[in-house]
Amino acid sequence: MNGNNKPYVIGLDLGGTNSVFGIVDNNANVIAETSVKTRGHNDNAQQYVDDCVVELRKIIDQVGGIEKIGAMGIGAPNGNYYTGCIEFAPNLSWAHDVVPLAKMFSDALGIPVAMTNDANAAAIGEMTYGAAKGMKNFIMITLGTGVGSGIVVNGQMVYGCDGMAGELGHVIVEKNGRTCGCGRKGCLEAYCSATGVARTAREIISNTNKPTLLRDIPLNQIESKDVSIAAGKGDEVAKEIFEYTGRILGGACADFAAFNSPEAFIFFGGLTKAGDLIMEPIRRAYDENVLKIYKGKAKMLISQLDDAKAAVLGASALGWEIVMERGTAISTNAI
Amino acid sequence: MNGNNKPYVIGLDLGGTNSVFGIVDNNANVIAETSVKTRGHNDNAQQYVDDCVVELRKIIDQVGGIEKIGAMGIGAPNGNYYTGCIEFAPNLSWAHDVVPLAKMFSDALGIPVAMTNDANAAAIGEMTYGAAKGMKNFIMITLGTGVGSGIVVNGQMVYGCDGMAGELGHVIVEKNGRTCGCGRKGCLEAYCSATGVARTAREIISNTNKPTLLRDIPLNQIESKDVSIAAGKGDEVAKEIFEYTGRILGGACADFAAFNSPEAFIFFGGLTKAGDLIMEPIRRAYDENVLKIYKGKAKMLISQLDDAKAAVLGASALGWEIVMERGTAISTNAI
Repeated sequence: MNGNNKPYVIGLDLGGTNSVFGIVDNNANVIAETSVKTRGHNDNAQQYVDDCVVELRKIIDQVGGIEKIGAMGIGAPNGNYYTGCIEFAPNLSWAHDVVPLAKMFSDALGIPVAMTNDANAAAIGEMTYGAAKGMKNFIMITLGTGVGSGIVVNGQMVYGCDGMAGELGHVIVEKNGRTCGCGRKGCLEAYCSATGVARTAREIISNTNKPTLLRDIPLNQIESKDVSIAAGKGDEVAKEIFEYTGRILGGACADFAAFNSPEAFIFFGGLTKAGDLIMEPIRRAYDENVLKIYKGKAKMLISQLDDAKAAVLGASALGWEIVMERGTAISTNAI
Repeated sequence: MNGNNKPYVIGLDLGGTNSVFGIVDNNANVIAETSVKTRGHNDNAQQYVDDCVVELRKIIDQVGGIEKIGAMGIGAPNGNYYTGCIEFAPNLSWAHDVVPLAKMFSDALGIPVAMTNDANAAAIGEMTYGAAKGMKNFIMITLGTGVGSGIVVNGQMVYGCDGMAGELGHVIVEKNGRTCGCGRKGCLEAYCSATGVARTAREIISNTNKPTLLRDIPLNQIESKDVSIAAGKGDEVAKEIFEYTGRILGGACADFAAFNSPEAFIFFGGLTKAGDLIMEPIRRAYDENVLKIYKGKAKMLISQLDDAKAAVLGASALGWEIVMERGTAISTNAI
């Protein structure tokens, strides 16, 4: 009835630095790709959209024109699914206010466009193409510069009353703990993001005399990536940093289970590259802390999506949602 | 198509002491009521059902026979919605194992029967008849002997992968805090249940020389009810106990908001009788602790259901769910 003769959707992974566009088929193949710098564009949202559309048209033409495209999905920081707006994104110079980005792209391209935040897009991607295929209840945790989450209940994304649900990175895990970017203290994000891991590294290295490869790096320049590399070489202090991080994350997940008793937690992002070094303490802390009735039920999985493409695929999956389930332009409901 | 000629449903509030049955119309009128002691029945589940049905038939006959009844809903401790079973209920002598209670009542009465836990039943009741009418995303918190919760997302109850989701009373609010009945430490329930409040009362009274009416009661006999009465008389120590309790509950709710960004938190149970003495610190702690994007969004409400009837009405609402939405016997899906 709708879009069946349209074999592709567009996914936009709108990051702080780059905006990556992919044209994707329903087997998760990225048929064509392009990108535009997110910054610049005279700090003007309409200019950003116009500049993107110029580049985008080139790859649309490559695949046979806009008639082949069923819809577009956007994963963006502070992207609100209900309104199709980016709301007060501190790191986007043209979105410090409320920008109706879904409607702007829809008007420019003449196709339906939906938007959600990046972690929700990742969860939809995982459900459509990845480790969560067929799951009805799971929690996606994205471990990047920040800690994001996308929650699925009864097979549906949890958007809440305002489109902004699922900010598990800002659940308090340590009363009066580390100051978080959100202005509060003790958030999960302050411990388990890449910056949180770097902070833990600095704390642990300062408080121990144990030998560690990490001392070769100036203390204030240590990044979570360095910890991964050192841990991969068997560095005991680096392993201790992952142990500390994983225990906090596993303990937090034990509390999250009491909410929607998920079939799985799926972890995504740089930190998961450490494999069992991070997953083992997560699993252990989860088992030790979870309520008895939930014990042994939730799987602890690493995302199955190719890192480089995951964000674009997630956004494209939101496009498929429109094509498959709704068939109408969500952007027509946007403000 | 189904049940339209059947003007009533049966609600069963299965408590540790009494099993209260109500025949309810779709305007929340309890047309007929009866009750049976929950204990006894030779510690045999089939005997319990048989004994209940004898009493139940009397009120069924009063309203015109079983042809008038569309379905039955049960709210029971450890009631699993998916299986229709009571699972390992420590306080029910005939349900220490797994008892397929929904199927047993369905077989005995010849009508569809659904079951869920008591807090979920309360949430469904509130959504059907009470303060949550028309809401799609809210969290019900029941403050009784324990702390229970029922969570609604996109207008649907959150049951999770196993039918056991929504145990927010067992989220950790104080690391290495008070021992909880579940065997873990620092659960919300250990602070904000009736027994938690009594425990707080004993702690605070022991640690202060301030005058208080509560000293008239032997320390180990103080109940949360006594704290309410004293607070109602302006007792400063009793108010401090509610302040402490409310702050912990409000802080916990701030974390819960990050999950499903609810339109409202609805509180039910004895503790809410204290009105603003408990609600004010809940609201204050919530506002101080909630993530900025959620600030000012969720209402903090007290249940609108009549306490004496709320549990039966909640269970009956589950019965209406079958009649209205499914039209088929969920118990046929039971194990």
